[in-house]
Amino acid sequence: MKKSFRLILAATLVAAGVPAMAQFQKPEDAVKYRQASFTVMAAHFGRLGAMATGKAPFDAKVAQDNAAIVEVMSKLPWAGFTPDTQNLKTRVKAEAWAEKAKFDQGGEKMVAEVAKLNAAAKTGNLDNLKAAFGETAKTCKACHDAYRE
Amino acid sequence: MKKSFRLILAATLVAAGVPAMAQFQKPEDAVKYRQASFTVMAAHFGRLGAMATGKAPFDAKVAQDNAAIVEVMSKLPWAGFTPDTQNLKTRVKAEAWAEKAKFDQGGEKMVAEVAKLNAAAKTGNLDNLKAAFGETAKTCKACHDAYRE
Repeated sequence: MKKSFRLILAATLVAAGVPAMAQFQKPEDAVKYRQASFTVMAAHFGRLGAMATGKAPFDAKVAQDNAAIVEVMSKLPWAGFTPDTQNLKTRVKAEAWAEKAKFDQGGEKMVAEVAKLNAAAKTGNLDNLKAAFGETAKTCKACHDAYRE
Repeated sequence: MKKSFRLILAATLVAAGVPAMAQFQKPEDAVKYRQASFTVMAAHFGRLGAMATGKAPFDAKVAQDNAAIVEVMSKLPWAGFTPDTQNLKTRVKAEAWAEKAKFDQGGEKMVAEVAKLNAAAKTGNLDNLKAAFGETAKTCKACHDAYRE
């Protein structure tokens, strides 16, 4: 690779504020990343919820598109719960770190239910979507109640 | 659906801060969503960049995983550039709104290059990744230079 090209790449990475070597350069980056992942997931999960609760008309294609994104997003935030973020001021309660294995299990349960939600959306059947949405929402709520201020 | 169940769902949605009917309830939500999408994309794009520039060892599986996420993310932020966000204080320059069609084309170009980047990652060949990463990075830089403070 030519040196000039390397410089362009390096400048681009710096400009984008992305970590170059470690997964996250700073603990703050890990927090920002996990919060961003949840933000994107929540937006798409909310659209499924609107359909599941009858607040928006059911559209099988829209449901499938949103559920597919939710499934990708559901796997991401966990990498941002690095030990070095423990003392940063966030909404994460101390309990999450004290019982990290249980916290992680809660995350895994959510990921598993989201996979079922995506499968349900693919059936194109609103009742399937409603049922799977409800089960998934319970896993969100369980962790929010236990581990989020 | 039982009323109690509806209430749990509604409470969950409110707790998650997600829009129930419109795609975004408030212009601020659209901004938060698009910024979050870029944050997640940048984190994963940065990991590809580290490999493409030799700052991290090349791992074909890691590259594929990251490129797949980048492809999903690349399609998301654009929905958050709604007209009602135009007057909010963000890093988006007035030029983006003044020449919105050109701005959108820049986004489409990025999405197209990211699709090629994902295809390149799937080949498992580092030279392919380097080339596609460079082309994609140019599309990031073009819009950042023109439309971002």
